[in-house]
Amino acid sequence: MMQTEAIELGIETRLLAREPDASAAQVIADVRIGDYTNFGDVESIAKGADAVTFDHEHVPNEHAQLLIDEGVVVEPRPNALLYAQDKLKQRRRLKALGAPVPEFAPINTEADAEAFWNVVNGEVCVKATRGGYDGHGVWFPASISEMLDLVRTVDVPLMAERKIGFDRELSAMVARNRSGEVRAWPVVESRQEGGVCRVAIAPAPGLDPELARECEQLACRIAEELDVTGVLAVELFETDGRVQVNELAMRPHNTGHWTQDGCVTSQFEQHLRAVLDWPLGATTPTAPVTVMVNTLGGEARPEMPVAQRVAEVMRRHPQAKVHLYGKDFRAGRKLGHINVATESLDEALTVAEDAAHFIVHGTWRDAAHTANNAKGE
Amino acid sequence: MMQTEAIELGIETRLLAREPDASAAQVIADVRIGDYTNFGDVESIAKGADAVTFDHEHVPNEHAQLLIDEGVVVEPRPNALLYAQDKLKQRRRLKALGAPVPEFAPINTEADAEAFWNVVNGEVCVKATRGGYDGHGVWFPASISEMLDLVRTVDVPLMAERKIGFDRELSAMVARNRSGEVRAWPVVESRQEGGVCRVAIAPAPGLDPELARECEQLACRIAEELDVTGVLAVELFETDGRVQVNELAMRPHNTGHWTQDGCVTSQFEQHLRAVLDWPLGATTPTAPVTVMVNTLGGEARPEMPVAQRVAEVMRRHPQAKVHLYGKDFRAGRKLGHINVATESLDEALTVAEDAAHFIVHGTWRDAAHTANNAKGE
Repeated sequence: MMQTEAIELGIETRLLAREPDASAAQVIADVRIGDYTNFGDVESIAKGADAVTFDHEHVPNEHAQLLIDEGVVVEPRPNALLYAQDKLKQRRRLKALGAPVPEFAPINTEADAEAFWNVVNGEVCVKATRGGYDGHGVWFPASISEMLDLVRTVDVPLMAERKIGFDRELSAMVARNRSGEVRAWPVVESRQEGGVCRVAIAPAPGLDPELARECEQLACRIAEELDVTGVLAVELFETDGRVQVNELAMRPHNTGHWTQDGCVTSQFEQHLRAVLDWPLGATTPTAPVTVMVNTLGGEARPEMPVAQRVAEVMRRHPQAKVHLYGKDFRAGRKLGHINVATESLDEALTVAEDAAHFIVHGTWRDAAHTANNAKGE
Repeated sequence: MMQTEAIELGIETRLLAREPDASAAQVIADVRIGDYTNFGDVESIAKGADAVTFDHEHVPNEHAQLLIDEGVVVEPRPNALLYAQDKLKQRRRLKALGAPVPEFAPINTEADAEAFWNVVNGEVCVKATRGGYDGHGVWFPASISEMLDLVRTVDVPLMAERKIGFDRELSAMVARNRSGEVRAWPVVESRQEGGVCRVAIAPAPGLDPELARECEQLACRIAEELDVTGVLAVELFETDGRVQVNELAMRPHNTGHWTQDGCVTSQFEQHLRAVLDWPLGATTPTAPVTVMVNTLGGEARPEMPVAQRVAEVMRRHPQAKVHLYGKDFRAGRKLGHINVATESLDEALTVAEDAAHFIVHGTWRDAAHTANNAKGE
């Protein structure tokens, strides 16, 4: 999705992809197939570029640093990226900044596990400190023995946090360029399913304006203090009118996809501007409300090809914006998303959910509903 | 610009380009270099495509027909395209439909020229019936002898029209899919310079709502009667609250670039949907007013590279949307355009003009103004 913005801005892109049929490789002309963990591969695409950036945070920092030492501009830089890669370092840094974070502790031994379990009365969330995404690398042990099992069997460094009982999840997104300019988008509500963001609503409905401002300022402060370049998503838990930081992502983020159709400057354009150290664009919304719903694959029905599903969605919902990633159906995989920008939250939510449901299932939600009702009678 | 929409919709594209550094060839992975007037070249890219379309109207119709005979979907089809290719056929057809067109006549001989000159009292516009664009192939002879010279020296078929004294130019754009669904965008005002569209304002300021509706209906009717598929631009002259058709274009058009940032569905997305026979998208504007200003190259100042100019524009105008075509500066060439979507016409026009001026000249308009004033004092 960065490529579409790059095209309009006249920015030439070069991609390192693991496989020729990766989403981005389908839409970028200059593709090198390689492994981002192999320094030679990364170096080969970095040569001559005005800036190097990534669409995930798992690039080895020692390689990024080697490139920087060679004079290549790499953004975000390892000193910032570290805090999106290592959850324990992130928690420690955020706590030091005075940012609201849940109680946490490193879990290296069974004794650590038992001690933390007791501190939080068993309200525990265990996380791999590195490598997790979309709910992977996160566990909620139901008993101390389950927690001890994790310590014994999981072979990556762990940490634990107090499990938060939250009212809803928010996401405060900002972008910061190399020169230090920061701009925030309106705070959105994010609805997760199985650890994956499925719905984003911009702006977050009914959010107290004071708290909204607080969230935006928090995200700006984190971007500045952590020296982030590019897009930063601060995922938050809202509980009783207060927030705590859940996760940080240093890249265009699922909760920012709405900006493609609901904002003057999309997160993808903004990320490019930020890493090239161009001034940032206006983050003003272009509609009172924009809803994004992901199309999470699962029930592939090969008898109706994706193109036909798209056409059916377009027929019923001329205002829906369909975005597809060129991926095949697979359980839980994000095939794309739908944005609907309009006056009314109800309409936006209904249309976006309806459209996304059809892309995934090849049937209308209300048809399924009617069928179920008929069965029940 | 169609490619950016194709990417988001998951549509795979293949391009026939004359040169590897053509704008579109820079952003499409699957490019064949060839000549659109060579049937073999066109056939080679058409094989296996769901639809074939073009970004200009000069594709030989006999080739398009051959492809259709082979079972390829080509849109728009030759029966429609003909009326965008041949101005005389277009005038005859529009007149037969009762559409408002200026008085016209074919000019094959000097006698034809003299006769028409007398009919319109020397208020003459001479046009090549085929091959013209952006002011090329259009002449305004100041005397009968100049007109006779044209007949003697121009070696393509000519026609003549009564020269229209108009208040302003409008553009009524619609799209029609293969199944016959038609959607109109708001009518825009178009400001030309040297035969090239330089500014478009959507919607056309102060346009009588009755006349706006009339223009939209006229464009819809032309699309239907001419069996157009894809985007159709009907360029109009407005005079004393009435309109006459100036030109037809059957493709995404300069006067529709504003839709990229000011409308739910851009002309580029709509064209793809239309030629694939997908249902059309909503044409609702997303801002009260959107202004597009082309960046027409001319005064290249290589000491400030384009990227730096873009950055300067972004610094001063965070709300300006920059679109570049990957072309080098050259006199009168369109390098790109700026869209500004906002509440106020004045603001949109000022910002878009200012931004476009800087991209082209590398200086601010007001700086030039101030410098001139200083010189004058």
